[in-house]
Amino acid sequence: MTRTPSTPHRLHLFSDAVFAVLITVLVLDLRPPAEHSFSALLSLWPTGVSYAVSYLFIAIVWANHHHLMSFAQTSTPRLVWANFAHLFTVSLVPFSTAWVADSRLAASPVSFYAAIFFLVDATYLVLYWEALDRPKLGDPAMRHVVRTRSWVTLALFAAATVVALFAPAVGMALIVFCLLLYIKPEPRLTAPEN
Amino acid sequence: MTRTPSTPHRLHLFSDAVFAVLITVLVLDLRPPAEHSFSALLSLWPTGVSYAVSYLFIAIVWANHHHLMSFAQTSTPRLVWANFAHLFTVSLVPFSTAWVADSRLAASPVSFYAAIFFLVDATYLVLYWEALDRPKLGDPAMRHVVRTRSWVTLALFAAATVVALFAPAVGMALIVFCLLLYIKPEPRLTAPEN
Amino acid sequence: MTRTPSTPHRLHLFSDAVFAVLITVLVLDLRPPAEHSFSALLSLWPTGVSYAVSYLFIAIVWANHHHLMSFAQTSTPRLVWANFAHLFTVSLVPFSTAWVADSRLAASPVSFYAAIFFLVDATYLVLYWEALDRPKLGDPAMRHVVRTRSWVTLALFAAATVVALFAPAVGMALIVFCLLLYIKPEPRLTAPEN
Amino acid sequence: MTRTPSTPHRLHLFSDAVFAVLITVLVLDLRPPAEHSFSALLSLWPTGVSYAVSYLFIAIVWANHHHLMSFAQTSTPRLVWANFAHLFTVSLVPFSTAWVADSRLAASPVSFYAAIFFLVDATYLVLYWEALDRPKLGDPAMRHVVRTRSWVTLALFAAATVVALFAPAVGMALIVFCLLLYIKPEPRLTAPEN
Repeated sequence: MTRTPSTPHRLHLFSDAVFAVLITVLVLDLRPPAEHSFSALLSLWPTGVSYAVSYLFIAIVWANHHHLMSFAQTSTPRLVWANFAHLFTVSLVPFSTAWVADSRLAASPVSFYAAIFFLVDATYLVLYWEALDRPKLGDPAMRHVVRTRSWVTLALFAAATVVALFAPAVGMALIVFCLLLYIKPEPRLTAPEN
Repeated sequence: MTRTPSTPHRLHLFSDAVFAVLITVLVLDLRPPAEHSFSALLSLWPTGVSYAVSYLFIAIVWANHHHLMSFAQTSTPRLVWANFAHLFTVSLVPFSTAWVADSRLAASPVSFYAAIFFLVDATYLVLYWEALDRPKLGDPAMRHVVRTRSWVTLALFAAATVVALFAPAVGMALIVFCLLLYIKPEPRLTAPEN
Repeated sequence: MTRTPSTPHRLHLFSDAVFAVLITVLVLDLRPPAEHSFSALLSLWPTGVSYAVSYLFIAIVWANHHHLMSFAQTSTPRLVWANFAHLFTVSLVPFSTAWVADSRLAASPVSFYAAIFFLVDATYLVLYWEALDRPKLGDPAMRHVVRTRSWVTLALFAAATVVALFAPAVGMALIVFCLLLYIKPEPRLTAPEN
Repeated sequence: MTRTPSTPHRLHLFSDAVFAVLITVLVLDLRPPAEHSFSALLSLWPTGVSYAVSYLFIAIVWANHHHLMSFAQTSTPRLVWANFAHLFTVSLVPFSTAWVADSRLAASPVSFYAAIFFLVDATYLVLYWEALDRPKLGDPAMRHVVRTRSWVTLALFAAATVVALFAPAVGMALIVFCLLLYIKPEPRLTAPEN
């Protein structure tokens, strides 16, 4: 039976297109102000802040996805479904961003926003497990470092979900702090290649 | 005449981009509630349920499309048009999803939703025929298994279309049951490769 | 200077993504009816008809673009800009489709719709000239056949633009007739390959 | 550790998809007029003008991005983040376009529009620095020419931002003038290849 080998190429194509649409769907919620002055524009700051944070988040998720998938050699059904679960949680980011912006950073929306970030991180751990941990790719010590960092950020997003209910600004600050931790995708895993 | 061979690569590119946009266009119908409380969020459950079912459906359709197209070696006009017919039916999913959500699972919208799923399945059978059956790819016994399953789910979607007119919840349950049958893309066809 | 050769690969990537978004942006104009009955759905027929015609049109444009670009070996600036002009005219299809649907096939919108189809065809001719005619690719007799067909459909779209002002239904019928002529992308050019 | 080399292929995929969505998201702001006459259509000219200018701008940005990235051989974290910063500024184009169109070319919106163009150009310079200047690719004299042109257009966009506050039409004319300068992507850099 002739058949092109099931490389994860189309999985990359599809995932990249989904990330690209999600990061730009965020833009659709940026509606210009009705008045034509800079002060009217400045009053849209909650939308601006949540757009920037969500853009940064999806960029980080893409960079980590990109890094993780560069290890995957075959497109197994388990990997495909872990990837769909991960993309599903990312797809909820624009919706929760719009709610945060609409409410101008109210308690429930920011808590929900943090919960979505928690779910994105959790499904990333599953994807990481399928792509790297199960096939035992990479150095065990390095995998341990990656896992530790993931559990720490997972705990921080969980904390942000609870804290936001009482102090939404603190919850938002916690989220931004987590993102800064994650900007560099698994640095030590890439190091031995050079 | 120099010309790059007509591989189905651009057919994959285009189809993946269409699937990616359709699965994220669904997200645009997720509008945040006007109030900033979790109870307002919970009252959106019909939107949530139809979003999740439609996401799962498009994910399954993509996984099967991905699997099917990995057998296609050349991009014939017949394959291109079967693919366009298939994508056309999939493109109606967001519209019918929004109607189901708006109506909070009323009879006509759920019946229409099941009819769209029927058409997606029917055009998938045509695509399967063009990609696998006509060029006689794969083991005949396996192709028989695949065809049988497709006809069974086709009959179930037809039943859901009729049943939903009288009992929309039962129709929806039938749809979800069909999806669970389809999660693994043609398992026995992939088996002999290992 | 090390540099990956300027193949038209990214031109394909970008064009396919634009086509994919345009064909699905059409879907966003399919808003579900406010009532939850099949009669309410049927009253949306002008939207349905214009969606189906526009989908078919973009599918044909993609198939011809796909065929044409398979001849292009290098991504010259002229080819890039001819392609951008072509995509610009295609990008006006959803807007004009929405106007036709809103007006339920009134005179001016259908005439404008035909004019957009004329422009898409005209920019296709430019792209064809850049990709095939200037580098003298393919058999001259075949190029003559392709050019003749393009000029005929161009004349028919021009006629539809004028006729629609007086009889929109006749203009729409002319458009659909042209599309049927174009479904098979340049059949004789592909023939010698087999 | 087996791992596919980190070529910038997925960076191209993702960037192209983002450009494609942004250029078509612009289309969503083209709403058909409520009346069905050509005079109603003509009254939408500010939308038409800003759509055409923004389309041309994103096309130019894509052509330059395409040209620049063809030099990049590896996908370094710095390149990835410079690319995300560049795409972020481009993602603000549809929003500012809609504001310009809404206001029918009022002072503050056109000034803001010019400021976005300034930021896109500034992040392009950073990307250029990461992709070409730091790895010292290409002829030094040529890199000098490219840098000079970038600083000139940067100054012109800054001027347009200020001028638009007092004379929006002059600011818009300055923007269009800059775009015409940029249509050919770094001509002298490509020359030695032939």
